[in-house]
Amino acid sequence: MLSQEQLLDFFKKTRAHSELICSFLETEDYVVQPIEDVSPPKWHLGHTTWFFEEFVLKPNVKNYKLFDKNSAYVFNSYYESVGDKVIRTNRGNLSRPTVAWVYEYRNYVSKAMQKFLKEEKISEELCGVVEIGCHHEKQHQELLLTDIKYILGNNPLFPEYNDQFKENPIQDFKQEWISISEGVYEVGHKTDDFCYDNEQGVHKVYLNDYQISNKLVTNAEFIEFIEAGAYKDVLLWHAEGWDWVNNNNIEAPFYWHKIDGEWHQYTLNGLTKLVPEAPLSHISYFEAFAFAQWKNLRLPTEFEWETAQQYFNWGTRWEWTESAYSPYPNYTKPKGALGEYNGKFMVSQKVLRGSSVATSPNHSRPTYRNFFHPHLRWQFTGLRLAK
Amino acid sequence: MLSQEQLLDFFKKTRAHSELICSFLETEDYVVQPIEDVSPPKWHLGHTTWFFEEFVLKPNVKNYKLFDKNSAYVFNSYYESVGDKVIRTNRGNLSRPTVAWVYEYRNYVSKAMQKFLKEEKISEELCGVVEIGCHHEKQHQELLLTDIKYILGNNPLFPEYNDQFKENPIQDFKQEWISISEGVYEVGHKTDDFCYDNEQGVHKVYLNDYQISNKLVTNAEFIEFIEAGAYKDVLLWHAEGWDWVNNNNIEAPFYWHKIDGEWHQYTLNGLTKLVPEAPLSHISYFEAFAFAQWKNLRLPTEFEWETAQQYFNWGTRWEWTESAYSPYPNYTKPKGALGEYNGKFMVSQKVLRGSSVATSPNHSRPTYRNFFHPHLRWQFTGLRLAK
Amino acid sequence: MLSQEQLLDFFKKTRAHSELICSFLETEDYVVQPIEDVSPPKWHLGHTTWFFEEFVLKPNVKNYKLFDKNSAYVFNSYYESVGDKVIRTNRGNLSRPTVAWVYEYRNYVSKAMQKFLKEEKISEELCGVVEIGCHHEKQHQELLLTDIKYILGNNPLFPEYNDQFKENPIQDFKQEWISISEGVYEVGHKTDDFCYDNEQGVHKVYLNDYQISNKLVTNAEFIEFIEAGAYKDVLLWHAEGWDWVNNNNIEAPFYWHKIDGEWHQYTLNGLTKLVPEAPLSHISYFEAFAFAQWKNLRLPTEFEWETAQQYFNWGTRWEWTESAYSPYPNYTKPKGALGEYNGKFMVSQKVLRGSSVATSPNHSRPTYRNFFHPHLRWQFTGLRLAK
Amino acid sequence: MLSQEQLLDFFKKTRAHSELICSFLETEDYVVQPIEDVSPPKWHLGHTTWFFEEFVLKPNVKNYKLFDKNSAYVFNSYYESVGDKVIRTNRGNLSRPTVAWVYEYRNYVSKAMQKFLKEEKISEELCGVVEIGCHHEKQHQELLLTDIKYILGNNPLFPEYNDQFKENPIQDFKQEWISISEGVYEVGHKTDDFCYDNEQGVHKVYLNDYQISNKLVTNAEFIEFIEAGAYKDVLLWHAEGWDWVNNNNIEAPFYWHKIDGEWHQYTLNGLTKLVPEAPLSHISYFEAFAFAQWKNLRLPTEFEWETAQQYFNWGTRWEWTESAYSPYPNYTKPKGALGEYNGKFMVSQKVLRGSSVATSPNHSRPTYRNFFHPHLRWQFTGLRLAK
Repeated sequence: MLSQEQLLDFFKKTRAHSELICSFLETEDYVVQPIEDVSPPKWHLGHTTWFFEEFVLKPNVKNYKLFDKNSAYVFNSYYESVGDKVIRTNRGNLSRPTVAWVYEYRNYVSKAMQKFLKEEKISEELCGVVEIGCHHEKQHQELLLTDIKYILGNNPLFPEYNDQFKENPIQDFKQEWISISEGVYEVGHKTDDFCYDNEQGVHKVYLNDYQISNKLVTNAEFIEFIEAGAYKDVLLWHAEGWDWVNNNNIEAPFYWHKIDGEWHQYTLNGLTKLVPEAPLSHISYFEAFAFAQWKNLRLPTEFEWETAQQYFNWGTRWEWTESAYSPYPNYTKPKGALGEYNGKFMVSQKVLRGSSVATSPNHSRPTYRNFFHPHLRWQFTGLRLAK
Repeated sequence: MLSQEQLLDFFKKTRAHSELICSFLETEDYVVQPIEDVSPPKWHLGHTTWFFEEFVLKPNVKNYKLFDKNSAYVFNSYYESVGDKVIRTNRGNLSRPTVAWVYEYRNYVSKAMQKFLKEEKISEELCGVVEIGCHHEKQHQELLLTDIKYILGNNPLFPEYNDQFKENPIQDFKQEWISISEGVYEVGHKTDDFCYDNEQGVHKVYLNDYQISNKLVTNAEFIEFIEAGAYKDVLLWHAEGWDWVNNNNIEAPFYWHKIDGEWHQYTLNGLTKLVPEAPLSHISYFEAFAFAQWKNLRLPTEFEWETAQQYFNWGTRWEWTESAYSPYPNYTKPKGALGEYNGKFMVSQKVLRGSSVATSPNHSRPTYRNFFHPHLRWQFTGLRLAK
Repeated sequence: MLSQEQLLDFFKKTRAHSELICSFLETEDYVVQPIEDVSPPKWHLGHTTWFFEEFVLKPNVKNYKLFDKNSAYVFNSYYESVGDKVIRTNRGNLSRPTVAWVYEYRNYVSKAMQKFLKEEKISEELCGVVEIGCHHEKQHQELLLTDIKYILGNNPLFPEYNDQFKENPIQDFKQEWISISEGVYEVGHKTDDFCYDNEQGVHKVYLNDYQISNKLVTNAEFIEFIEAGAYKDVLLWHAEGWDWVNNNNIEAPFYWHKIDGEWHQYTLNGLTKLVPEAPLSHISYFEAFAFAQWKNLRLPTEFEWETAQQYFNWGTRWEWTESAYSPYPNYTKPKGALGEYNGKFMVSQKVLRGSSVATSPNHSRPTYRNFFHPHLRWQFTGLRLAK
Repeated sequence: MLSQEQLLDFFKKTRAHSELICSFLETEDYVVQPIEDVSPPKWHLGHTTWFFEEFVLKPNVKNYKLFDKNSAYVFNSYYESVGDKVIRTNRGNLSRPTVAWVYEYRNYVSKAMQKFLKEEKISEELCGVVEIGCHHEKQHQELLLTDIKYILGNNPLFPEYNDQFKENPIQDFKQEWISISEGVYEVGHKTDDFCYDNEQGVHKVYLNDYQISNKLVTNAEFIEFIEAGAYKDVLLWHAEGWDWVNNNNIEAPFYWHKIDGEWHQYTLNGLTKLVPEAPLSHISYFEAFAFAQWKNLRLPTEFEWETAQQYFNWGTRWEWTESAYSPYPNYTKPKGALGEYNGKFMVSQKVLRGSSVATSPNHSRPTYRNFFHPHLRWQFTGLRLAK
C-alpha cells in the first residue's frame, strides 16, 4: 500500500509520462480513429483525466467545479452505468474539443488532484481509487503507443513517430526447452503490491509434464512459415481463423510490407527492413496457433506460462496463450462503475501473458492477465512455443 | 470394438432412425433453411449418406459406381480438403435434387453398405470409419430434430411436428447442493467403448471445493429473472452478451411467446402453454451466465460437471458450462478429411455437457463434449448452477 | 370494357394459365427463394388468389367464409395499408402452407369467384377490380417464369423446366435505322381497352430528330463487347455500374457460362450452347448503357421508343430505355390499397418498353411501362440502340 | 471567353476565397470525415490544388518540379483513369499530411500558376482547363461550407462556425402561383459564358400548362406536415423513401432538434431557435416529394423550373425537381480525365436547380444542373411547389 506522499509522486509521474508520449505528435495525429479499436490520442488524454474527475474529485472535493459539464459525455468510455456517452466508433469524428482544450482540462484536473492529495487526509479506500486511476492511465499509455503506431503506420506516407523508440530487442541466446514436472501448482497474485482484481484468488492447478521455450519465435522463423505456404493450408487453421485469413487476404503479420521482393516492417521509427533475428510481432492468435500447428508444437496455457516464467526472459512481446479468458474461481465483481472497469465479463477472448516494449514502466507482473479477441494484431503480440 | 455383425446391425438401426425422424414431415419441410445454422432436412439425409459413399464405398469397394457424380458437390459440408461444395448459406436455395431422389440415394448407398459389411471381411481401421459414420449420422439426427423445430417453430402457422415427442420431462425432486471436495481428479474417456477424439487423453485436473445443483433451472425460476428486469441490467451481462441482447431485442428464451399476458412455448407438439416446472430450454450461454450472476451463483466448469455427474440426473438439456472449448493436453489431430471432422479447431465456443431430449438413443456419455457459440439457442440448451 | 360473361371467361383462362405454368414443377421447386427479388412459385399462386379474396369476395359476397384466416398474413405482399405480412425475404423460409394447401386455396377462391361472376349482377367498378385482378395475375405469370428460371438456373444441377419453351427466336432480317423527324408527338394510352394507370394521361412530348434500330442487339455483338475488354473499361460505365461490376465480379450476361472455352447459356430448356444470332438477354441497364457507349450510340428514351415502335418488331425482350420511371403529368393516385398497387411511387428505376418471351399472352401494349432497378437481370431484358 | 489577365485575376480570387472559408477553423476541424459524403476540409484544399498541378502545371510547365510525389495519391478523388488513390472512406483516417503542409502545397502551386499565367502565352484550350479548375474549386467551396456544417453540427458541443454567415434570409412577399402556358420551349445554356458540359446542347421540350410557386416552402409549413403525422403515413412516400424514413428514424429535417418542446436548428452560427418564416432547408428528395403529395401538389420538372425561373426569386436553396439526372440529347463525353470530371454518368440521382446560400459568388446560372441521390440532406436543399 502506497503512502499518500508516494501516491502523489506516482500520480505526478504517471500524468507526465502520458504527455511525454504525445509530445512527438502533430495536432492532427491526436484526432483520427482509423478503426474502432484504435482511439484518437486526445481521447486517451481526456478519458484518463475524466476518470480522476469523475471518481475522485467530483464525489470527494467540496464545492469541486467541473472543468466543463460536457467532459463526461465526450470522454466516458464503456461505463454504461455512469451515463450517456459518445459511441465508440464516433470518437474519430469529433474535431472538438480541441487538443489545446484537452491539455487545459488535464492541467486543471492534475492541479486539483495534487492539491487534494497534498492538503487532505484521504481514506484508504479512496487512496485505492487514486492508485487504480494511475494504473488505468498506465494501461492507456500502452494503448497510446499502439494506437499512434496504427495511425501513422497505416498512413500512406509512413511518418516516423520518433527515432529513439526501440521495438526490436534481439534475443542473443540459444533456443532451449525448459522442463516442468507434472504436479499441483499455485497461481495468482500473492504479494501486497498492486494488482488488478482478475489476478486475485490464489488457487491450485494441476499441470502435466511440459516443456516451454526460453525464446520467443523470431521473424526469420515466421518467414519460413510463410514460404512453406502455411497461409494457404486450411488444416493448420481454426475455422474462424481460416475465414479471417481469407476474408482479409492475410499473407503476413501486420505492418509487414514486401517491397521489391524484400520484407519491410513499419516501426515507430518509420518503415525499415525487417530484422530477421527480432522477435516476431503483431500477429493474431490465429497465426500464433497455426504456426505452432505447423511446427507440431503448441502454445502454453496461461498457467504453464505463469509457472515457468521465472526461468526465461520476457517483456518485449505480449505472448498469446491457449487459455480463454475467464474469471478465477471465487472471483466477485466489485459494485458500481469501478466494478464495471475491473470486472467486465469477457467471452471469446484469449489470455496474453508477459508485457511488451510499449508497456508502461513498472506496469508488468508475472500474474498480469491481458486479453484480446483472437484476430487482433495492433498490439505488440508474439508467441512462445510449448510442448 | 464392435464385431462386423454388430456393426451391420448398428448401421441398419442408425439409418432407419433418421428416416423415422423425417417420416412426420411434408415434402416442403425438407427444403428450407431459414438461418445459416439450420440445414434443410433433405441435406442432412444426403450428407450422412455421402459420408459413407465418400469414405467407405468409393475407396474400398471394387468398381463401385457412384449413385450420381454431383452428390459430393451438393452434400459435402465443411470438408474443405475433399473438394468444392455448395456454400452453406445456399443449401436452402436448392429445390433439386428432390426429396424422392435423396431417398433413392439413401437406399442405394445403404444397400451397398450392407452388402459390403455382409460379404467382405473388412479391416479394423475401416470398421472404425463405419462406426464413426454411424455416430456422425446420430449427431445429425439430433440436428434434424432441432432444425425441424426451427423450421416449423418459426413458421407463422406453428405447425405441429408430431404429438408424441416429449420435450419437457418434469424433475420431480427437491433442489439440493452436491458437495465435492478439493483435490486432483481424472477426466476424459476411460473405457474401450466408442468416443470422439476430443474426449480422449485422460488427464488430471485440480478442482477446488465446490457445490453443484442436483436439478436444472426451471422455467418458473427464469420467469422471475425476466420479471426482475434482468434483461435490462447491463451489470449482469458479458459485453458481447449485452450487445446481443440489445441488437436482437432479446426478452425471453427462444420459442417463448407472450400471448394475452401468458407465456407460451413452441414445442414439437405445437404451441402450448409454458410448463413452469419444466427445465428451462433454448437459452444462450449469455442468458445462462446472466441468470447465474443474478443468483450470485455461477456455472460449473466442464471438469466440475464431469466429476460430479454421477451424483445427479442429466440428459434432458445440454448444459452450458463456463469452460471454453479447447483440445485436451496431448491431443493430436488425425490426418486427412476425417481429421478435419474430428479435429476441427474451435475458438470462441463454450462447452456444453450432458445430452438432451433430442439426442439420439445411446449417443450420450459423461465425457461427451459438445460446443457451440455462446449466442446460439436452437439446441435444447439449459443450465445447472454451481457455487 | 368487358361484359360480365367475357370477364368470367377471362378470369377462368387466366387462372388456368398460372396452373399450366406450374404444372412442370416438382413440389420442392415451389418453395425456395434464392434471392429477395425471386418469390417462391407457391407464393405467387397464393398471392394472386389472395388478391381476389381480399378485394372482391370478402367485401362483396354476403357471408363469404375465408378459406383460412392466415392467408392474408402469408400472401399479402407490399400492401402496407392492408395489414401485417410476412416480410419479403422470409417467403422462402416457409415450408407451410404446403403446395397442396395452396392449390385447395386456389380452387376454393376460383369457384367462389366463378359463382359470383355467374350469379350476381356486379357493378362496373367491381368489374374493373376483377379485371385488374386478372391483369395482376398475368403479371405474376411472367414473374413465375422468370423466378422459376432463377431457381432452376442457379441450381448446380441445371435442371430443365420444359423442352417446349422458346426463349431465343432469331431475328432473320437485316439491321437498319428507322428515322423519326423532330416534332411534337403524343404519348400515352389512347383506346378504351384495359391499361394500367401509369400509361394514362395522353400528353405531348417534343422529340428531336433521331434514329432507332429495327433490330435488337444480338449475343454475337455482345461477345465482341466482352472480348474488347469493355467490362474493365471504367470510362464506359456509370459510377454505380462500375461498382456493381466490380463488387459482383460481373463478366458476362446473367445465365452465361464459359465451359471449356465456349459460351453456354442456361435456358428454360436447360444448359445449351449460346446461339450467337439470338437477341441478347438478361442484362442490366448498366450493361445496356455501357454497350451503347462502346458503340458510340445510345439507348432510346421511352417516348422515342413509343413513337417509333410501329415501325419495328418487338416482344421478345424487355428493352431498357434511358428514361427514369416517374408518373405522367396530371397522374393522380387512386385511393386505398388498389392505389398502393397502381400508384406505387418509384425512384431510381429505369423504364423498360416492349414485352418478352415470358410475358403472358395478350398482356403487351405499345404504351406499357415496365420498370426495374438498373442492376437487375433476372427478367428477359435486352436492348435496342438509338442515335 | 476570359482574357489571360482576367483569368489570372479569377484564379487569384478563387484561391483566396477557399482560404477565407477555412480561416474560421481550428486545425482539428480540417481533419475529420464523419460520413463518406463529407470530406475533411484539408482534403478539399489539397484536392483543388492537385487539379491545377496535375492538369495544368505538370503537362505544360517545362521542368516543373512536383511539390511532393505523394500528393496525387492522397488528393486524387474519383479520377480512376489517373491512377491509384486513397479510397474515399479513408480520407478522414489520415492525420498526415498536416494542415500546415497543405497550405504550403497550396502556396507552391498558386505561385507556380500565377507565374505561368503571367509569363507564358497559353493556348485557348489550356485557358479553358484553368477556367474549369477555378469553377471546380468554386464547387468545392460550397462543399467546404456544407461539410464544415456537417462536422460541427454533428459534434455534441455544437460549435459555431462564424457569427456572420446568413443561412436564413426571409422571403418577405406573398405566395402566388405563376402560370406558364402549354407549348414548346428551349432549354440549355445559350450564352458564351462559362458553363458545364451538362448544360450544353440547347434543345426543345414540350411543356403542358403549369403553375409554379413564387416562394419556397417555409419551416412553418413543414412543421404542419410533421404535426399532421406525415412521416408515419406510408401512402405519401416512395417505397425507397419509406424504407429510408424507417431505417433511419427520420422525424424532421436534418439539423433540427426538439429541445424542451421547441424546434431548434443547428446553423453555421451555432444552435438557434428555428425561424418559422425562413425557407425550409436540409431535406431529402423523399421529404420534398412527400410534402408535395400531402399538399396534393407536386415538384416541378427541371425544364418547368428553367422556363419559369425568370419570374421568381431563387438562390437561397437548391430546389429538388422531379427530374432524374440524365445527359441532354447529343451530349458527348470529353476524352480522358477531364471527361471523367465532366461526363460522369449518373443514375438514380435527382436534379436540383437554383443555388444556395453556400454557393460560391458568381457560380450560379439558370441552366445549372446540380444532382444528388434522393436521400441526401447535408446540402442546403429546399423545395418549390408546382401544379
